[in-house]
Amino acid sequence: MSFNTFGRVLRFTTWGESHGPALGAVLDGCPPQIDLTEADIQPFLDARKPGTSRFTTQRREPDEVKILSGVFEGRTTGTPISLMIENTDQRSKDYSDVAKAYRPGHADYAYDAKYGFRDYRGGGRSSARETAARVAAGAVARKIISGVQIRGWVSAIGGDEIDEGNFDADQIGQNPFFCPDADAARRWEAMVDEARKAGSSLGAVVTCEATGVPAGWGAPIYAKLDADLAAAMMGINATKGVEIGDGFGAAALRGEQNADAMSPGASGPDFASNHAGGIAGGISTGQPVRVRVAFKPTSSILIPVPTITRDGEESEIITKGRHDPCVGIRGVPVVEAMMALVLADHFMLHRAQTGG
Amino acid sequence: MSFNTFGRVLRFTTWGESHGPALGAVLDGCPPQIDLTEADIQPFLDARKPGTSRFTTQRREPDEVKILSGVFEGRTTGTPISLMIENTDQRSKDYSDVAKAYRPGHADYAYDAKYGFRDYRGGGRSSARETAARVAAGAVARKIISGVQIRGWVSAIGGDEIDEGNFDADQIGQNPFFCPDADAARRWEAMVDEARKAGSSLGAVVTCEATGVPAGWGAPIYAKLDADLAAAMMGINATKGVEIGDGFGAAALRGEQNADAMSPGASGPDFASNHAGGIAGGISTGQPVRVRVAFKPTSSILIPVPTITRDGEESEIITKGRHDPCVGIRGVPVVEAMMALVLADHFMLHRAQTGG
Amino acid sequence: MSFNTFGRVLRFTTWGESHGPALGAVLDGCPPQIDLTEADIQPFLDARKPGTSRFTTQRREPDEVKILSGVFEGRTTGTPISLMIENTDQRSKDYSDVAKAYRPGHADYAYDAKYGFRDYRGGGRSSARETAARVAAGAVARKIISGVQIRGWVSAIGGDEIDEGNFDADQIGQNPFFCPDADAARRWEAMVDEARKAGSSLGAVVTCEATGVPAGWGAPIYAKLDADLAAAMMGINATKGVEIGDGFGAAALRGEQNADAMSPGASGPDFASNHAGGIAGGISTGQPVRVRVAFKPTSSILIPVPTITRDGEESEIITKGRHDPCVGIRGVPVVEAMMALVLADHFMLHRAQTGG
Amino acid sequence: MSFNTFGRVLRFTTWGESHGPALGAVLDGCPPQIDLTEADIQPFLDARKPGTSRFTTQRREPDEVKILSGVFEGRTTGTPISLMIENTDQRSKDYSDVAKAYRPGHADYAYDAKYGFRDYRGGGRSSARETAARVAAGAVARKIISGVQIRGWVSAIGGDEIDEGNFDADQIGQNPFFCPDADAARRWEAMVDEARKAGSSLGAVVTCEATGVPAGWGAPIYAKLDADLAAAMMGINATKGVEIGDGFGAAALRGEQNADAMSPGASGPDFASNHAGGIAGGISTGQPVRVRVAFKPTSSILIPVPTITRDGEESEIITKGRHDPCVGIRGVPVVEAMMALVLADHFMLHRAQTGG
Repeated sequence: MSFNTFGRVLRFTTWGESHGPALGAVLDGCPPQIDLTEADIQPFLDARKPGTSRFTTQRREPDEVKILSGVFEGRTTGTPISLMIENTDQRSKDYSDVAKAYRPGHADYAYDAKYGFRDYRGGGRSSARETAARVAAGAVARKIISGVQIRGWVSAIGGDEIDEGNFDADQIGQNPFFCPDADAARRWEAMVDEARKAGSSLGAVVTCEATGVPAGWGAPIYAKLDADLAAAMMGINATKGVEIGDGFGAAALRGEQNADAMSPGASGPDFASNHAGGIAGGISTGQPVRVRVAFKPTSSILIPVPTITRDGEESEIITKGRHDPCVGIRGVPVVEAMMALVLADHFMLHRAQTGG
Repeated sequence: MSFNTFGRVLRFTTWGESHGPALGAVLDGCPPQIDLTEADIQPFLDARKPGTSRFTTQRREPDEVKILSGVFEGRTTGTPISLMIENTDQRSKDYSDVAKAYRPGHADYAYDAKYGFRDYRGGGRSSARETAARVAAGAVARKIISGVQIRGWVSAIGGDEIDEGNFDADQIGQNPFFCPDADAARRWEAMVDEARKAGSSLGAVVTCEATGVPAGWGAPIYAKLDADLAAAMMGINATKGVEIGDGFGAAALRGEQNADAMSPGASGPDFASNHAGGIAGGISTGQPVRVRVAFKPTSSILIPVPTITRDGEESEIITKGRHDPCVGIRGVPVVEAMMALVLADHFMLHRAQTGG
Repeated sequence: MSFNTFGRVLRFTTWGESHGPALGAVLDGCPPQIDLTEADIQPFLDARKPGTSRFTTQRREPDEVKILSGVFEGRTTGTPISLMIENTDQRSKDYSDVAKAYRPGHADYAYDAKYGFRDYRGGGRSSARETAARVAAGAVARKIISGVQIRGWVSAIGGDEIDEGNFDADQIGQNPFFCPDADAARRWEAMVDEARKAGSSLGAVVTCEATGVPAGWGAPIYAKLDADLAAAMMGINATKGVEIGDGFGAAALRGEQNADAMSPGASGPDFASNHAGGIAGGISTGQPVRVRVAFKPTSSILIPVPTITRDGEESEIITKGRHDPCVGIRGVPVVEAMMALVLADHFMLHRAQTGG
Repeated sequence: MSFNTFGRVLRFTTWGESHGPALGAVLDGCPPQIDLTEADIQPFLDARKPGTSRFTTQRREPDEVKILSGVFEGRTTGTPISLMIENTDQRSKDYSDVAKAYRPGHADYAYDAKYGFRDYRGGGRSSARETAARVAAGAVARKIISGVQIRGWVSAIGGDEIDEGNFDADQIGQNPFFCPDADAARRWEAMVDEARKAGSSLGAVVTCEATGVPAGWGAPIYAKLDADLAAAMMGINATKGVEIGDGFGAAALRGEQNADAMSPGASGPDFASNHAGGIAGGISTGQPVRVRVAFKPTSSILIPVPTITRDGEESEIITKGRHDPCVGIRGVPVVEAMMALVLADHFMLHRAQTGG
């Protein structure tokens, strides 16, 4: 893996900045003869797209994907698939303050410390717009592992968790929060509105589950499925934590509580529980693969925060412009995409070593 | 990275099984002219070594490391450093039941599902003995980044957290739990004893902090320092969660609470807080890099758990033999080693791209 | 490295087919703060561009490069540089025969055997048009190692070698053959004309030399500078052989003939000869790095060759359309580009390990 | 790939110096359930072993391989296979002169220039003893692709080529030169004896052919089978040139001469010739894969050569000790091993992308 490439056998490289002419991904290693058109990708981009409700940034981007290579007569050829999304609604004037001072919580200072200067327009390379490229690549990955179903949702906003008893998958697409609990969605509407109007922001937790993953994907010791998922999720903008299965909850359990007892099943074992989140020893067990991801509150807020300028002077900054009041919401399609990409990569890696 | 290799520029490959003749690591890419002898490595192995108290497994392994290559006249030559640790206290007879049935929580079933068979002696490749090789490699990594101090500790056992107000770094080496809070250490002694006697086990949380990391290490987008740390930690045996800085706690904060305000400092900014755990946009900020890692309770317990045999028959298993009642405790030197390896790798990667 | 990515620390990924909408490269790992505009890249593309004389294919492509990312205010930012070249002169109708039967010497059959089908238009991914992306990336690489001068030339066509005694670097740009020997250029004009009119083609040898490479680039054992150059050159379309220094000639020498004797020099040793081509043990010695590359004759010829159809039927094929009568000629800028990319990568890799 | 690792999916890392306690390889990614014992590996090491005739170095090394991991009950487990060979006949006293002055043709100066110092005993890491580790790993690779036959031979020594008309595979094992032409073997005996007695050395060419490789292995554009073979071969000690198929000879042909005409065959096409050496567009065609490798004459000679000391003083050096008068001879098992490793890697890579 290089700086901007992810994956082992199925690899994708993303490029592009928030305010450049375009951004994109090159997906390399895709198996041949998979039906693929832009229409297979666009719905996932639409789910991530900004400007669809008042709970996301008001930047208007159609996020239309173009396939520039790797597909012939509607099928993948096995050669690299170049995916491009043009930027259309850049407003560079919004970002003049950012050129001078560092926004706390953003990568401004770190980029300057590393590279000596930075593309300050909209966060440049560190903008969450980069995740559109992941979502596009992830849509292709889903087709590689078409027997696997991947579904993500927001399970908490601002510390307010959904009630698992209210879980209704059909709800996820019916509110602007990807929320499976209709009651929680109502509460969150008020909460996010309040934060947005106050110029503040809220953190969130995204949960994602993949069903239909057969036992045997993943590999010891440094190609573990859970380790790759952890890297994939912790590399998404604004994430600060990753859990597999019970995660930190497991650290408070006793051994007999945490054991996922097995009994004979139709094909492989039936498990009495899934504390492990579908992974043991870095290898899938056939249970649903479940991951939870913590998103911090959006760092771009209208409330002034003390900071310093590029010249080291004391200052204060508020981040005007168009921002998500809760960046975790639009994280759902990104988490799903990364899950798809990791699983497709491991499907192929497993096939390389074992033939199957 | 391949299946058993970790790292980008500084790479190490580990090999070996719990009950084979030896295990080891090959560390490749180490800078030349670093003073290195076995004595630099041994203390870290001793800290991880089994059998040092009743709170760890009673397997007795001296874990003596031999340097087989890459060092000449006491200095690294820049060529691969082969580190070998011989196994001396294997007792294969302990593991006969495991050959027949799958231990819930262990990788037994997953390995069989992947490879069609497995080395069942002591967990084979999935045994935590593999982490000795990481600790040895990590000791070398520390020397590459000699300006960085890395310190880990256990911050919770069985859900019982330390009191940050009691934090005393000097305590860490003075109890068998790597615990910085003397009161907590006393409580844990009783807890772990109880679990051990009950044939059960407890989970734990390990916290690790690196100070002296300059701003600028890490790289967008898929070589982020936090993403690499997440992979490093989630690849340790028995880990189920990773947090950078406030982690899941950040998901419950508002933007203004989570912002690490900056003011002019002696060299770079002074930060009012470190919610971010020393990393922004995947790049170090100059603050301490802080990570928390969740360890599940040891899956090897004496309490019977329903399971199936290799032939798919209903069964029940208890795991006799010598096991850690709380595997998280000995996770401390491993977490530290992985932190050192990731940071040394990023030091070198940063130098490749920027010269500095 | 993945299927379509080259490099270790400085990595580039190319994408695109002969008759798709565009092709390109993503160059990742480029150091920051290097001045870069399209004007730095275009001259190298112009040197490789088709249609500039009757000795190259008559396809007309402006090969105008666009920088889509990684550059801000005229300087590289350290983030991936996306380079795109649009295809403008595709004529898909030329290639209908190729869809049905396999052209001997081309990758048609191999691609079908691998992927089950192929983009047959102009060779698809196996077209030498892909090398435009390398040339663009190579132009950036040159700027990374600005102290190194790289110069290539054609040293033989159809078995007719230049006379080293006639070597005049100024001649290289003054004939359509990148030929440093004015006499040879005259001979080749007649030869290539004859072959072109006969519907045949000729092979060629390209020599490339880099001066100003300091001693110490390259690394044992599987990152040797010469091994990486060999891979780089053997991956260019139509190449069948690579030599470093004396190459196969060295295999006919005795030890004392082949030794490059050293004497004290101003900075490092003075060498009495350069049989080694500037590399010993995979590491540069400070002498000019010299490589020779064999290009087979273009496989696209108007002379009929027996072949089989996709259905396995006996057939015969002639390759109409626009082709280079001697593809080695336009190989010169590609060989130079790959030399620049390998050297820049090793400059950075050396810096990673040794700081300098 | 890192400095000392080779391969894409099947990767091996070698370690060790000429005069250290041992050397070895870690082979990672090997498929599970392959029968493997030391006895499968030893014959290949014996073929490469020094001291078997007066035409190779008189260093006596049993080169006994030990399998330290990755094999259980006689079968590979899918986990890393650690192979170790102990050094037994080091004589460090032989190398005292080398510590002070640089041997022309050797890596002495380059290593010092890179790392600031070097293990000078027997060439340290740059010694051809490292190739024992490759041969061991290659023996395992052969078992992964058991349907492929790999056979190498010396095709020229000191410029004296075998007569293809005399080719008799059975001869290869019956003379100390791996020579398939009994007449040439007789001539070479005199030639190598003369060079040895004169304290000189001779270059050689090794040819290697793999039959039974199905069409479809290899991948565009930077994972081409021929490019990987070129890297593999050019990374062997003392190699200076690599050819696929006709190699440089193809550069002197016309298109119609170089075309490998096809006709319908039993399974896939029959080819009228194999100028291409079994590879088109970087992908195997089903024909024998053929490579030629140029080895320079051994740089260690008893004839004095002008050189400089570490302090930059004028000097002269002769290389006493035990050396091969023609290092290319013992290159045969190494070339075969690298061929096996590259092909096995591509077998697995192909399976990853296409299922097989």
